[in-house]
Amino acid sequence: MQEDDFKVTPWEVSGKIDYDKLIRQFGTQKISEEILSEFSRISKGNMHVMLRRNIFFSHRDLDLILNDYKGGKDFFLYTGRAPSLGMHIGHLIPFLFTKWLQDIFDVNVYIEITDDEKFMRNQEYTLKQTSEWAHQNILDIIAVGFNPDKTFIFKDTEYIRNMYPLVTSIAKKLNFSQVKATFGLDATSNIGILFYPAIQIVPTMFERKRCLIPAAIDQDPYWRLQRDLAESLDYYKAAEIHSKFLPPLASSGGKMSSSIPESAVYLSDPPKTVEKKIMKYAFSGGQATTELQRKLGADLKVDVPYQWLYYIFEEDDDEIRRIGNEYSSGKLLTGEVKKILAQKVNQLLEKHREKRERSEEMYSTFLYDGKLARIMWDKIHS
Amino acid sequence: MQEDDFKVTPWEVSGKIDYDKLIRQFGTQKISEEILSEFSRISKGNMHVMLRRNIFFSHRDLDLILNDYKGGKDFFLYTGRAPSLGMHIGHLIPFLFTKWLQDIFDVNVYIEITDDEKFMRNQEYTLKQTSEWAHQNILDIIAVGFNPDKTFIFKDTEYIRNMYPLVTSIAKKLNFSQVKATFGLDATSNIGILFYPAIQIVPTMFERKRCLIPAAIDQDPYWRLQRDLAESLDYYKAAEIHSKFLPPLASSGGKMSSSIPESAVYLSDPPKTVEKKIMKYAFSGGQATTELQRKLGADLKVDVPYQWLYYIFEEDDDEIRRIGNEYSSGKLLTGEVKKILAQKVNQLLEKHREKRERSEEMYSTFLYDGKLARIMWDKIHS
Repeated sequence: MQEDDFKVTPWEVSGKIDYDKLIRQFGTQKISEEILSEFSRISKGNMHVMLRRNIFFSHRDLDLILNDYKGGKDFFLYTGRAPSLGMHIGHLIPFLFTKWLQDIFDVNVYIEITDDEKFMRNQEYTLKQTSEWAHQNILDIIAVGFNPDKTFIFKDTEYIRNMYPLVTSIAKKLNFSQVKATFGLDATSNIGILFYPAIQIVPTMFERKRCLIPAAIDQDPYWRLQRDLAESLDYYKAAEIHSKFLPPLASSGGKMSSSIPESAVYLSDPPKTVEKKIMKYAFSGGQATTELQRKLGADLKVDVPYQWLYYIFEEDDDEIRRIGNEYSSGKLLTGEVKKILAQKVNQLLEKHREKRERSEEMYSTFLYDGKLARIMWDKIHS
Repeated sequence: MQEDDFKVTPWEVSGKIDYDKLIRQFGTQKISEEILSEFSRISKGNMHVMLRRNIFFSHRDLDLILNDYKGGKDFFLYTGRAPSLGMHIGHLIPFLFTKWLQDIFDVNVYIEITDDEKFMRNQEYTLKQTSEWAHQNILDIIAVGFNPDKTFIFKDTEYIRNMYPLVTSIAKKLNFSQVKATFGLDATSNIGILFYPAIQIVPTMFERKRCLIPAAIDQDPYWRLQRDLAESLDYYKAAEIHSKFLPPLASSGGKMSSSIPESAVYLSDPPKTVEKKIMKYAFSGGQATTELQRKLGADLKVDVPYQWLYYIFEEDDDEIRRIGNEYSSGKLLTGEVKKILAQKVNQLLEKHREKRERSEEMYSTFLYDGKLARIMWDKIHS
């Protein structure tokens, strides 16, 4: 990738990403018009904004999933999260989209909380920390509104016994050279992190059906390994639907990072903080002065407030078109667009926090004693 | 080790082993006269034959264990087994000795059954096989007669959830280079086997007390890793007491192997088979003809039947001295010594099988609902 000025791996996302190039590099498929119209048909015209706006832009075997579904064969959804101190807006993307997929297809969803990975990957973290973060993150995930009868959320450290026989079968098929090459590890990498890919792969085999994984495209290397070995264990190759990254607030490249607070809006940020972060840090494609902006207009391609509105916050197609036109023609100023965004973000966060208040009482349903959870705790995967 | 004609690693034992040299190579301690007389005192003169005959010959920190014990501080015992199709006589050594230690010290014993390791290390084995072997091996181990209130036998695949948080803490402290160097692994080794040392180390931290591990000396590399990291996790460095290898029937070097049937006597071998194996295959240090034997006598150092008698089967010190004298002076012939051995082996096996018949009814006590087992299932190690 030396000639590129961007990088997308499970451990680093940086630069201005050329997503078409990424599709060619990773060997994935662009989401076609046929697939989009199939989604439109199934959702009765209510296509999710992230599909309409091409935030989910790439896939593997999504056509097979849809074909199967057409023929009456269902599938299951799998996504996950490495717990962190706080979740930001970008972290919600796969969950919001997965929830929509669950709504239209009425299928099981498995959500893996990789507290083991987080702990083993970072020298400075303790298990107590990652376990507390896991709990807090799960409350945010529950607030997204998954079907409690058909959703199982689990922490690796807790569910390991049920997964372990299958984990050993997967681990037996992966060697150091492969995980080294796939994840940029080396001889100084600890043996927990070397082993971990087997644990992220196992939920793709929770049912003997096709598995569809909605996730950011940086996770694709895991699924490439999965696809190389799944059939030898008599399971399906995982299908995926890949998202782009919501650009960080302060620049138009890379992805939001929890470790750079001003680059992200957290789900827990109060309205004033959100407004301040957006007004102060959001990278603008507008001109330096009001006069120049009126004359030249904003460059939407690099303007973060516009992209956030486009990606997530302004679902109305007419409205986003209007904002785009007026902003790029100079009728709207950066400050005005930022205000619109701040309002929209705060609306979403307010709703989210309202729902989150009821998450704690649903916690054990999703993790231990809901309909799907009970089935999963009774199952040893092998 | 190029200048040596023997090799002792967890994955290979071969050649005529020079145990004094091994102590120097591994950096362990010879069991001293002081330690022996301390054992004699504690056991009220009933020292185990394997101590008297120096089969357990080397240690680390055994002096600290005994000192602590003198001062009223107890410890715990840990040993284990990678399950195999059948257990042979050599496999009994650590268990027989551990049981004796439990008897005289009245301490907890943990026995790890590494079904995960066995499966991941051998391409041709299935989990179903290793799990069935685990069950059968456990019945043999139970027959040894451990205290059911103070002994916990567990399979890795079943107990992993309770161990996993601590496993991740250990794994985080070991990197590829270390396990590669310690266990002769390489870049083609599967990630399960690379990870496995963390799982073998974790039982040394089941209690915040000193842990004493009776095991063959080939397992020492695991404990060297343990000793490098234990204190950083606020646990004790593991103490060990190392045994030599019972020589295989058909040669006087290496160790018995389950994969070469004529080299071993299995716990399930019927009397006729035992007799035939010993008469036919046991490597003799006697002379080629009766005349020469009467004249020159046997070379006890290479004679396998004599060594088996010495190591395990003839506990009476006067009697083994008599056999040694008469055999090396030519008064006894190889065939006669072999007959003595066959009789002794069959006596032990008959008793073992009698006890084994009652093992099944004790199975759940040792694994799930005995006094110590219940405590262990309620505990998450972290």
